[in-house]
Amino acid sequence: MDSTVVGVLGGGQLGRMFGEAASRLNVTVRFLDVGEHTPAKQITSVPASLDGPRHVDGSFADRAKIQELAAQVDVLTVEIEHVDADELQAVLDKQLVRAVHPSPATIRLIQDKYAQKVHLQAHDVPVVESLAIDNDKDMHAAVRAAAERFQLPLMLKSRTQAYDGKGNYTLRSTDDVHAAIVALGGGERPLYAEKWAPFAREIAVMVVRSVDGHVASYPAVETVHEHSICHSVYAPLRSDTPELAERARAIAEKAVATFSGAGIFGVEMFLMHDGAILLNEIAPRPHNSGHYTMDACETSQFENHLRAILGLPLGSTALKAPSAAMLNLLGLADLGRDPDALAKTLAPAVRSLHVPGTTVHLYGKSGCRPGRKMGHINVVGQSDAQVHERMGALLEELRLAQAAAQSAAPWDAEAARERAQRTLSSDKSARDFSHPQALVGIIMGSDSDLPVMMPAAQTLKAMDVPFELTIVSAHRTPDRMRDYARSAPARGVRIIIAGAGGAAHLPGMVAAQTPVPVIGVPVKGSTLDGVDSLHSIVQMPRGVPVATVAINNSLNAALLAVRILGTGIPSYMAKMQAYMDEMEQGVMAKVERLARDAWDY
Amino acid sequence: MDSTVVGVLGGGQLGRMFGEAASRLNVTVRFLDVGEHTPAKQITSVPASLDGPRHVDGSFADRAKIQELAAQVDVLTVEIEHVDADELQAVLDKQLVRAVHPSPATIRLIQDKYAQKVHLQAHDVPVVESLAIDNDKDMHAAVRAAAERFQLPLMLKSRTQAYDGKGNYTLRSTDDVHAAIVALGGGERPLYAEKWAPFAREIAVMVVRSVDGHVASYPAVETVHEHSICHSVYAPLRSDTPELAERARAIAEKAVATFSGAGIFGVEMFLMHDGAILLNEIAPRPHNSGHYTMDACETSQFENHLRAILGLPLGSTALKAPSAAMLNLLGLADLGRDPDALAKTLAPAVRSLHVPGTTVHLYGKSGCRPGRKMGHINVVGQSDAQVHERMGALLEELRLAQAAAQSAAPWDAEAARERAQRTLSSDKSARDFSHPQALVGIIMGSDSDLPVMMPAAQTLKAMDVPFELTIVSAHRTPDRMRDYARSAPARGVRIIIAGAGGAAHLPGMVAAQTPVPVIGVPVKGSTLDGVDSLHSIVQMPRGVPVATVAINNSLNAALLAVRILGTGIPSYMAKMQAYMDEMEQGVMAKVERLARDAWDY
Repeated sequence: MDSTVVGVLGGGQLGRMFGEAASRLNVTVRFLDVGEHTPAKQITSVPASLDGPRHVDGSFADRAKIQELAAQVDVLTVEIEHVDADELQAVLDKQLVRAVHPSPATIRLIQDKYAQKVHLQAHDVPVVESLAIDNDKDMHAAVRAAAERFQLPLMLKSRTQAYDGKGNYTLRSTDDVHAAIVALGGGERPLYAEKWAPFAREIAVMVVRSVDGHVASYPAVETVHEHSICHSVYAPLRSDTPELAERARAIAEKAVATFSGAGIFGVEMFLMHDGAILLNEIAPRPHNSGHYTMDACETSQFENHLRAILGLPLGSTALKAPSAAMLNLLGLADLGRDPDALAKTLAPAVRSLHVPGTTVHLYGKSGCRPGRKMGHINVVGQSDAQVHERMGALLEELRLAQAAAQSAAPWDAEAARERAQRTLSSDKSARDFSHPQALVGIIMGSDSDLPVMMPAAQTLKAMDVPFELTIVSAHRTPDRMRDYARSAPARGVRIIIAGAGGAAHLPGMVAAQTPVPVIGVPVKGSTLDGVDSLHSIVQMPRGVPVATVAINNSLNAALLAVRILGTGIPSYMAKMQAYMDEMEQGVMAKVERLARDAWDY
Repeated sequence: MDSTVVGVLGGGQLGRMFGEAASRLNVTVRFLDVGEHTPAKQITSVPASLDGPRHVDGSFADRAKIQELAAQVDVLTVEIEHVDADELQAVLDKQLVRAVHPSPATIRLIQDKYAQKVHLQAHDVPVVESLAIDNDKDMHAAVRAAAERFQLPLMLKSRTQAYDGKGNYTLRSTDDVHAAIVALGGGERPLYAEKWAPFAREIAVMVVRSVDGHVASYPAVETVHEHSICHSVYAPLRSDTPELAERARAIAEKAVATFSGAGIFGVEMFLMHDGAILLNEIAPRPHNSGHYTMDACETSQFENHLRAILGLPLGSTALKAPSAAMLNLLGLADLGRDPDALAKTLAPAVRSLHVPGTTVHLYGKSGCRPGRKMGHINVVGQSDAQVHERMGALLEELRLAQAAAQSAAPWDAEAARERAQRTLSSDKSARDFSHPQALVGIIMGSDSDLPVMMPAAQTLKAMDVPFELTIVSAHRTPDRMRDYARSAPARGVRIIIAGAGGAAHLPGMVAAQTPVPVIGVPVKGSTLDGVDSLHSIVQMPRGVPVATVAINNSLNAALLAVRILGTGIPSYMAKMQAYMDEMEQGVMAKVERLARDAWDY
């Protein structure tokens, strides 16, 4: 479809997945990496029309090899940012290739994490405050000055060659300044100090930038790191805060728009406890936090990177499944010391074959050592709860495998489980309500309404609908009502059932403050038989509907909620049909009984 | 994950896509086909651990080559059924491989289309009636006897080596018997006669069979053929007939369960005008009608084939997007005569880069000739209407490309468009209602209710919701009401809005006969101010809910429908939020005007 030949510096797993996307579009890719059988080279051959060696065997840091690759391709790109940006610029200047994406300038800027931060700050992108620690001056004094300015603990980081937490040092006492400098290269490399940022959660957004500078972002996701290595990803981002996800996307898009050259960028951010978002760092290439896009989005990050660098139209970044997650398969043991290292590491992948909605992506790496990225598993589902359940099975298997590997792995399995448990749930409301990934919220003005509302809860439970149940009073807790209604979509709640008696303002006032459907249950009071509440709930003004059911009939409210879920989730429609069939059979049994036993009356 | 090495007879596009699935699971595949650069061999290399030639160069009909491949692999499978089944059995008997899937006996049985039909009929699977025309007897007499028994026109078919319509002859007059026999091999090959089956539509179901005989089916789809070549596929199957799709799956599962050996099977069926389903033929391998599974289902047909033949658990066959389609990219011209043949053929793929939800799969074939399968485009969407719109853009491009190729292609572009236009819509109701792929149905008991129900229609139109609008009366057309309610899910209608006055039975009676949510609009009559209708609609018994809105407020019914759609389709939730924001701004403008102009009062 495009006869451009693409050269990639690096031939690991990112190249492998990029090669998959390219092969679907008949685009030829050549990789530069050491060895004949790197993950990318294993599966990416070059078609017949191009004879000679398929890929280049050599280091992506080797200038001669970069030139050799450049001579064979039209466009150069990277799967790793720690490349020789000067050589890429030289290759471009010599017109050995048509383009380098992203631009060498962008790669150079991003390689230096401090320069990256200064650049972003200059473009009004919120970042953690930081200070340069030059290695040609007194580094000890500079670190102490930074500690004075930012307080302890303080993050000390290598400006370059840092990834997956390597090159970071947490300074907790000024007594450790020397140790920190030694740990971070002993003064050989420039460092920078970063203010301690005790974030609440980590967020990431993939952004693709076209040749003409247009940017498009994927949904914001929550990333879970263990010991600075990506452990799992959950999409879309859930939160109590309406608009948080859109704010994260806007920041990520703004940041990527400041760079030159085309391609996909991984933008990692911190969500602070006060709700602020700070950009942590950017990767100028496909990113681990975007692997979920392969099975969950209309266009994968790899295809969009290809489209961007070829100048083709960018693909849709929309989710095609409502909820998704990704679990990294990180090496659990060293193959040299444990012959079962690979089997242990891949145990969650084997388990995933029994779990619907999962897709395994293995990278074909021959060696296995603790923490090495060996593959990942993508999970999709019709709801957060379903994805969480599917993910739960994989995390359980991971825990067993980690135990079997005798905790040789450098992270804490329990901590990972706990964090994953919290993820996808709302930040603070999870403690108030019943199910952490509720699809339906049942609310009522007072606990005196509980007996009337219980059949709704029981029915949802019987029909496997994850729900939360709580008290929200329109007149006594108007702020809580507002927060509850506003946050519903961002928390993943798709339907609200509100029970109310008397003046019965709750359903209508909630409907006025949320775009999700609200089902109103009129609760019969001591006067007027509930007709007052019925009319209050049903007679909404034009513009704000409440789906009203019969007085005191919360069972029907739950059944209506299941019918509504069935419009998007086929299994719920099947459950409703089964419920109706059962109801019919129940009545038919009574018909028979009456026909048989009527004589006795 | 599995160290089994798989050998495949054939190395075309099916092998290529099978190889993609295998590489994700680190499973090594070797292909047997002529040439170094067949579609499958292009992208499927063998990892470092296996040295020597990656694939076998030779014909999959060559016994020596089959043995050569067998010696290098553990399990053999096929991407085409026209292989030497005897040799596969011999290889198995000699224990050169652990298994051949599907079994040589299954392949042999399916190769002979008449034997296949006899076998299926013996297992109570409904097939078109047919008669053998042996080539060792008087074929002319046998054909005439068949014509007498089945009437004309009569289908004459080659028992073996037939695909994509090749090997079929439509006998319209007994004068043509000789011509038919000549056209079908001149008596060299055995034939069979098939009763003319003027079907209404074509249906297909992919079925995967595990080593232990368990079968699982994918959703039923509608296939559109042009000149016996698969043109496009639409999933899931839509129909006026409730349960049709499930019936098709049951027949396909029953048929595949009769075969031995594991793997995926493509089952093609005819839907007759009387609603009967007849099985047409079965392919014992991945199939064109299952390509949509790559982007639309939780596990693709290729991965499930791999899982089945390796004895791994079968993957989920569920759709992960609500609606999907597939368009084949068939060669439009001969590259030898038209240097732009490939560009013309791939025009819809280039166009698809602008269409969200599409994924292009090209096969890397170097040659291009009319009708050759060069690739396909998968389309996913949140609704049939969205998929139809996306597909429409591709079909439009195809039409232009066909015109540019000066109709060298052997099919009729207009006919294809028309058929595709009809597809996804209901069989007969399309003429009665407004939108052929309606998500919402608006019904009312009488045209006198139309003025009250019009705001619902106008609102749905304004918010881009595909809907249908018609009259369904509970008391005057009870059968029509039943059919309408029952068929709603099978037709793809997700919500019904029912307006009714007076006794107002329509909403409740519809809700009693469908699992989709029903929104009731009480229409104000000449007495009781509509309170009679309100109570009739809202006071439903336990078990059958109607979502009731205010009297005469069909606007709110439409807004509720949009909120309900928003639970599954994010864009509708965004539209609802925008509507609410606009409503708020509209009131705020009035607030300002009142504050400013109040002096005048």
